[in-house]
Amino acid sequence: MDFNAALAERAGENLKKLREKRPLIHNITNFVVMNYTANVLLAAGASPVMAHAPEEVEEMASIAGAVVLNIGTLTNDWVESMVKAGWKANRMNIPVILDPVGSGATNLRTESVRRLINELSINVIRGNASEVLSIARRGSFTKGVDSMHSVDDASDEAVSLAGKLGITLAITGDVDLITDGKRILRVYNGHPMMGLVTGTGCAATAVIGAFLSVDNDPVTASATALAYFGLGGEIAAGASHGPGSFMISTLDSLYNINPAALEKGAKIKI
Amino acid sequence: MDFNAALAERAGENLKKLREKRPLIHNITNFVVMNYTANVLLAAGASPVMAHAPEEVEEMASIAGAVVLNIGTLTNDWVESMVKAGWKANRMNIPVILDPVGSGATNLRTESVRRLINELSINVIRGNASEVLSIARRGSFTKGVDSMHSVDDASDEAVSLAGKLGITLAITGDVDLITDGKRILRVYNGHPMMGLVTGTGCAATAVIGAFLSVDNDPVTASATALAYFGLGGEIAAGASHGPGSFMISTLDSLYNINPAALEKGAKIKI
Amino acid sequence: MDFNAALAERAGENLKKLREKRPLIHNITNFVVMNYTANVLLAAGASPVMAHAPEEVEEMASIAGAVVLNIGTLTNDWVESMVKAGWKANRMNIPVILDPVGSGATNLRTESVRRLINELSINVIRGNASEVLSIARRGSFTKGVDSMHSVDDASDEAVSLAGKLGITLAITGDVDLITDGKRILRVYNGHPMMGLVTGTGCAATAVIGAFLSVDNDPVTASATALAYFGLGGEIAAGASHGPGSFMISTLDSLYNINPAALEKGAKIKI
Repeated sequence: MDFNAALAERAGENLKKLREKRPLIHNITNFVVMNYTANVLLAAGASPVMAHAPEEVEEMASIAGAVVLNIGTLTNDWVESMVKAGWKANRMNIPVILDPVGSGATNLRTESVRRLINELSINVIRGNASEVLSIARRGSFTKGVDSMHSVDDASDEAVSLAGKLGITLAITGDVDLITDGKRILRVYNGHPMMGLVTGTGCAATAVIGAFLSVDNDPVTASATALAYFGLGGEIAAGASHGPGSFMISTLDSLYNINPAALEKGAKIKI
Repeated sequence: MDFNAALAERAGENLKKLREKRPLIHNITNFVVMNYTANVLLAAGASPVMAHAPEEVEEMASIAGAVVLNIGTLTNDWVESMVKAGWKANRMNIPVILDPVGSGATNLRTESVRRLINELSINVIRGNASEVLSIARRGSFTKGVDSMHSVDDASDEAVSLAGKLGITLAITGDVDLITDGKRILRVYNGHPMMGLVTGTGCAATAVIGAFLSVDNDPVTASATALAYFGLGGEIAAGASHGPGSFMISTLDSLYNINPAALEKGAKIKI
Repeated sequence: MDFNAALAERAGENLKKLREKRPLIHNITNFVVMNYTANVLLAAGASPVMAHAPEEVEEMASIAGAVVLNIGTLTNDWVESMVKAGWKANRMNIPVILDPVGSGATNLRTESVRRLINELSINVIRGNASEVLSIARRGSFTKGVDSMHSVDDASDEAVSLAGKLGITLAITGDVDLITDGKRILRVYNGHPMMGLVTGTGCAATAVIGAFLSVDNDPVTASATALAYFGLGGEIAAGASHGPGSFMISTLDSLYNINPAALEKGAKIKI
């Protein structure tokens, strides 16, 4: 396959900038993945912070390079804090990324995602096909947090939804699809073992946040971030014996990938 | 020692069914172990979800193959959500498993366990001897979450308690004891290193939940689940250098154990 | 360099006592690090428990060898529980350790730390230089949870602050500084990779708690605990390929370090 050289180069540049800037990434995320997300961000070169108290989320967001919202173990008071943090970020032109974990599985999740989209200006939504498409339609049943749609099946609907919402959608699966309604990028990095480690998707979302803090085009930021994260998984797969060692080895490989290696390994197509 | 061949075969069959069905396991569990529990369930072949908001626990429980309740970092509002989820599961004949972490150590824990037992129909309780026996009596001091009773000492009391409650009790220790008040099974799989990794017991409880979703006899489901989980620990011990690598290696081995290997390695006695 | 032999010996003795006593360490800590903290405490030889419900924190604190308070993902109700647990510990002469994660980054954090210091008798505060110095002054900007001061720059201010507060301060960095306002100890154990694993500082705080439960001099307890933890990192660095394997290998090495190895490897200076 022929991958896009300019986007591969951009991936390397973004990683270089990230490691020079070491931006603070403010996460309001779920309990399951907080530790792994923080470690992935550290390995990538960012500085993670988790903070959800209503009294401090605006202050924390205001010193962040990006704000990552994730509804994986949501309750209404956490959604309130997400709105507060997102508002502050919006007013300061700090990018906001949303991970709609399990949207479609329960009304609370689907409605909370809609509320966040309505009340905030969100730059990127990263989810699997079921989660992202649940934003547009009723009855898109999600079995827990696993996807029941392939990215290819979701392609047309995703382009239309991105255009309607004015939000870049990053749908991850065997192949990742990124679209703002006009452009469509596909990322071929990754490894099937990633589906066997909890929080892989959530960590990918946080990495998109980190890349958005150094690349203000949400389409290229998302695609290059997913190429980087997927490459980490590819390298880890060669050094592991199952999902446990794969999870740990991914942290090692994300840390060891330098900009040149990413430029060489990024598999992005337009 | 001579182990039971029919139960070893059943262990293999249960694992096979689990991997075909990939049931959603709904956990309302503690903050310490959420990540590890989710990764253990994924390695075993189940699909984990953690959800505790009162607005969604009934909906989530209703699409689950089993509901796992764990009081490790309980507060009263979480116990309310456990009651809600458990009620819904009971009405839909979805199995409910309880892990009484630290019961006996504080009144809040002991009383919360009693409330859950009184208000719900629970299929299996999995704990160490101190925790499980604290259900029956006052003054059973638990030093944190570590057990001060051996499984053998607890045997008679456990059989009587299981019969009285009408709940299958799975008491884990050097040897695991499973009883519904009539039958007594013992599982000899496992490794001492398991006591040095936080959340091992909690993960075992979740695996029992997964096996209950494919085996509606709580005694055989519990015993085969504990044989599988213990075998994972045995294999991991040979590939690790301390509790950290043991923890990670256990995820690898749980993933790599296939039904035939489990049938061969299960050490269950009647 | 010439390290202090008496303090190295004390380090070995403290570790020996810890493994004989296996004290319960009661943590009210943040969501990100709960799992890793519990595993570090288990590897060290302590028995961890995490409990934050207002109904049980006093009871749990009363059976603990030390109480560890950490504001990493604080909300006001968690701070209330910290005050309750700390009060109970104070009345029973159980040591209390505070980790002021991110103090200086938001008003909520800075003010919560001041409240805990005012309302409780705290034995040791462990943080990076930015966090610890934020207690004394306004405008000590913390970029998330990363430090912007070197330990050497902080030295004079730390000695003065410790004396004024009557609290032992343990400031960790390239070299760790421990002072009660009169004595100054420095610990040279550790490895730069520790800064790339989330919760390393929080786990160090918990290990200080464990050592305080067997050594009632907060200065020597803190220095020997940090020497032990840092030695774990040094050994892990030789066996790892990046921050993921380093994190896991640290658990292995903390478990495998015996008192004699710690006495040999501790690098403490007066």
